[in-house]
Amino acid sequence: MTVSLSQKCIAEFFGTFVLVLMGCGSAVLAGTHVGFLGIAFAFGLSVLAMVYAVGHISGCHINPAITISMLSTGKISGKDAGAYIVAQIAGAIAASAVLYFIAQGKADYSLAANGLGANGVGDPGSPDHYSLISGLVAEIVFTAIFLVVVHGSTSKNNKNGAFAGVAIGLALTLIHIVGIPVTGVSVNPARSIGPALFVGGPAIANLWVFIVGPVIGGLLGGGIWKLYDKN
Amino acid sequence: MTVSLSQKCIAEFFGTFVLVLMGCGSAVLAGTHVGFLGIAFAFGLSVLAMVYAVGHISGCHINPAITISMLSTGKISGKDAGAYIVAQIAGAIAASAVLYFIAQGKADYSLAANGLGANGVGDPGSPDHYSLISGLVAEIVFTAIFLVVVHGSTSKNNKNGAFAGVAIGLALTLIHIVGIPVTGVSVNPARSIGPALFVGGPAIANLWVFIVGPVIGGLLGGGIWKLYDKN
Amino acid sequence: MTVSLSQKCIAEFFGTFVLVLMGCGSAVLAGTHVGFLGIAFAFGLSVLAMVYAVGHISGCHINPAITISMLSTGKISGKDAGAYIVAQIAGAIAASAVLYFIAQGKADYSLAANGLGANGVGDPGSPDHYSLISGLVAEIVFTAIFLVVVHGSTSKNNKNGAFAGVAIGLALTLIHIVGIPVTGVSVNPARSIGPALFVGGPAIANLWVFIVGPVIGGLLGGGIWKLYDKN
Amino acid sequence: MTVSLSQKCIAEFFGTFVLVLMGCGSAVLAGTHVGFLGIAFAFGLSVLAMVYAVGHISGCHINPAITISMLSTGKISGKDAGAYIVAQIAGAIAASAVLYFIAQGKADYSLAANGLGANGVGDPGSPDHYSLISGLVAEIVFTAIFLVVVHGSTSKNNKNGAFAGVAIGLALTLIHIVGIPVTGVSVNPARSIGPALFVGGPAIANLWVFIVGPVIGGLLGGGIWKLYDKN
Repeated sequence: MTVSLSQKCIAEFFGTFVLVLMGCGSAVLAGTHVGFLGIAFAFGLSVLAMVYAVGHISGCHINPAITISMLSTGKISGKDAGAYIVAQIAGAIAASAVLYFIAQGKADYSLAANGLGANGVGDPGSPDHYSLISGLVAEIVFTAIFLVVVHGSTSKNNKNGAFAGVAIGLALTLIHIVGIPVTGVSVNPARSIGPALFVGGPAIANLWVFIVGPVIGGLLGGGIWKLYDKN
Repeated sequence: MTVSLSQKCIAEFFGTFVLVLMGCGSAVLAGTHVGFLGIAFAFGLSVLAMVYAVGHISGCHINPAITISMLSTGKISGKDAGAYIVAQIAGAIAASAVLYFIAQGKADYSLAANGLGANGVGDPGSPDHYSLISGLVAEIVFTAIFLVVVHGSTSKNNKNGAFAGVAIGLALTLIHIVGIPVTGVSVNPARSIGPALFVGGPAIANLWVFIVGPVIGGLLGGGIWKLYDKN
Repeated sequence: MTVSLSQKCIAEFFGTFVLVLMGCGSAVLAGTHVGFLGIAFAFGLSVLAMVYAVGHISGCHINPAITISMLSTGKISGKDAGAYIVAQIAGAIAASAVLYFIAQGKADYSLAANGLGANGVGDPGSPDHYSLISGLVAEIVFTAIFLVVVHGSTSKNNKNGAFAGVAIGLALTLIHIVGIPVTGVSVNPARSIGPALFVGGPAIANLWVFIVGPVIGGLLGGGIWKLYDKN
Repeated sequence: MTVSLSQKCIAEFFGTFVLVLMGCGSAVLAGTHVGFLGIAFAFGLSVLAMVYAVGHISGCHINPAITISMLSTGKISGKDAGAYIVAQIAGAIAASAVLYFIAQGKADYSLAANGLGANGVGDPGSPDHYSLISGLVAEIVFTAIFLVVVHGSTSKNNKNGAFAGVAIGLALTLIHIVGIPVTGVSVNPARSIGPALFVGGPAIANLWVFIVGPVIGGLLGGGIWKLYDKN
């Protein structure tokens, strides 16, 4: 079948909407109940579900770092990549708005006190007060690992490509299990931009870390994958 | 093979019975041990298991919001949809009766104090005392997300349809991780009707939220899916 | 390929060994760390792993209640069923011995105080002091659900039979999430016989519950499956 | 396609890097938040993700005990096995260095106090102070179980080989759920060597347990598999 770019962008918008609403929502609405392990499953299962829900339309990037890594490996055109990234960021902003609306239905909710799942480095910002350089290195390394899973599990040489959604989703859960104490885990600029626009202050000041880190990591991951996988 | 409508209804009855007995049972019998994360896995794994156990017979809706969304997208006839919904509600009521029987084998069990996994909004009702409007919006949005996963993962255009049970089941786990504090999560009128009939009081008074919300969300999810997926 | 009965019995012995060593081991060695949710995953992931490790040889029953249900639905011969059950019980006893050896390497381990993962009803016996009748009903209902998943996910009419290991394993996790507080969850006579022989006392006195309950439940599950699935 | 040995070694280096960075990283960076259950998922999901990311290139051993068991069953040449093991150990050491760098970005991090996820036996060393003999037996038995899953799920006789990554990854999660209190769980000499070189002291003194145990267990697992599976 032929899928139009606008259909792909709807898929990317909706997929990123779900990732940010449910991932950040798990922290904001349920974090005190489910802990970091529950939040890690929420982010990963959002991606797993979206891969099987919209992946056959757009490839389910729902992350500008993935789209840029796909561009760098010649798997998407520049025009489509630009449209994807706009749709992803728009979906993340819409998700933050919906999350904010639901969250304020709790009498003692305060955006200033509870936040909206924004990422951070340093003190305050990093959940366990890790330094800026640790946070930046972590985002680069984690995104590189994530992109190796994305490229490897969807490689033309991989006959088990049907499992890519399981592998990629659970890899994101893995990254969150390890990394939430360091930066709250971004590995996805759109996921960081959405909440930061609402929370403001340090979330905006630190935002460059969660754009630069994932983009460098995404390019690095594509390069590592090319080293071992023939195409 | 040809499957009769009565066989399909047995499958829907049994599947909904399992979802309500095990999902609500995790809260009633084990909630203090496994927390909201454990309850979230119980609901999701009930659906995952039932998709592979009865899905080849009835499609494993086990949820009137899914059946109505399937009707609105022309995937089921009106006659079958009506029979499915009756079977689903009957299965949910039977499950609540069995759960009640097992639960009262604990000396200090009290239906009034511990409930039977009923959903709620406001104070009391919502586990973390979210407002009615937050609860209603959450049920609509969560059901819409759930139905996009249902339609997208089972789309004729999706060559990985075998993974639909994994994606749909774990999407329900995801929704519970995020939403239990808000309403206890319904996204399924049958799942709410069963316990409410036993618990009575506010659970009955609030029941409309968990019928109207999921049905609107289900229709919305079908509409979103149609926007991006060609059929 | 042709597989001999002795190869099948080795597979059943080893599979049941792993289920009992790792399932009961999670409770005995790690229960205070991982909680009931962790124990529930240990039992379920044992089955999931064994289905893909030995299922192509013996079908991976590793549970007399499954073997008897398979016999009642004409899927295994009486001779093979008898050999399977002997192998399963032997595997469970061997697992209990190995677990006991590892457990006593902790200075303050006491078989009398900490047990070996035996099942129980009443007070003491049931983790949350549920009555005998609640425990018996729970074992029957849970085993019936388990067997519907086993029969349905492996049905000749089910084109997604490759997922049976995922569905059956995670269904066992589900059953443990819900039922550990009631009886510790057996749904498998071999799993109960192994530890009971070492623990003795009430574990032996209650053992009939965990033989009679799962066998009735297994037959019931096979009957429910036949109602909706054509063969 | 033809894959060169150097490409295979890059895949093994990277896969082991991810396993050690993320597995040990979950303990060092996030252990107080996610508990032993979260650490168990981190180790298992690392393997699951790597099987689908690099398995089509190298088979994704990322563990000398697997490579030696593959050598003993004639599935890899001696030359390739040697290269694999060197790459695995190098990847584990690199991962420990990166983990150490990220960890020290937390002001109160101390290598002496918090360690780097090293394995241990006895008191101190074993998390719950299990004896050397319990630890050694546990490593042998757990690695044997792990290798039966590896050989069985990838057997030529197994038509569901596509699920091997799910089964093997979740089997490692299972082993960690049960065994972390005993030794921290190695079942992989490379995973133990990496952190031990940084932590020194008892971690080096005990290192032989985590080389000898997994290698014996790996050979034992290959032997058990041969008993029931025809090739």
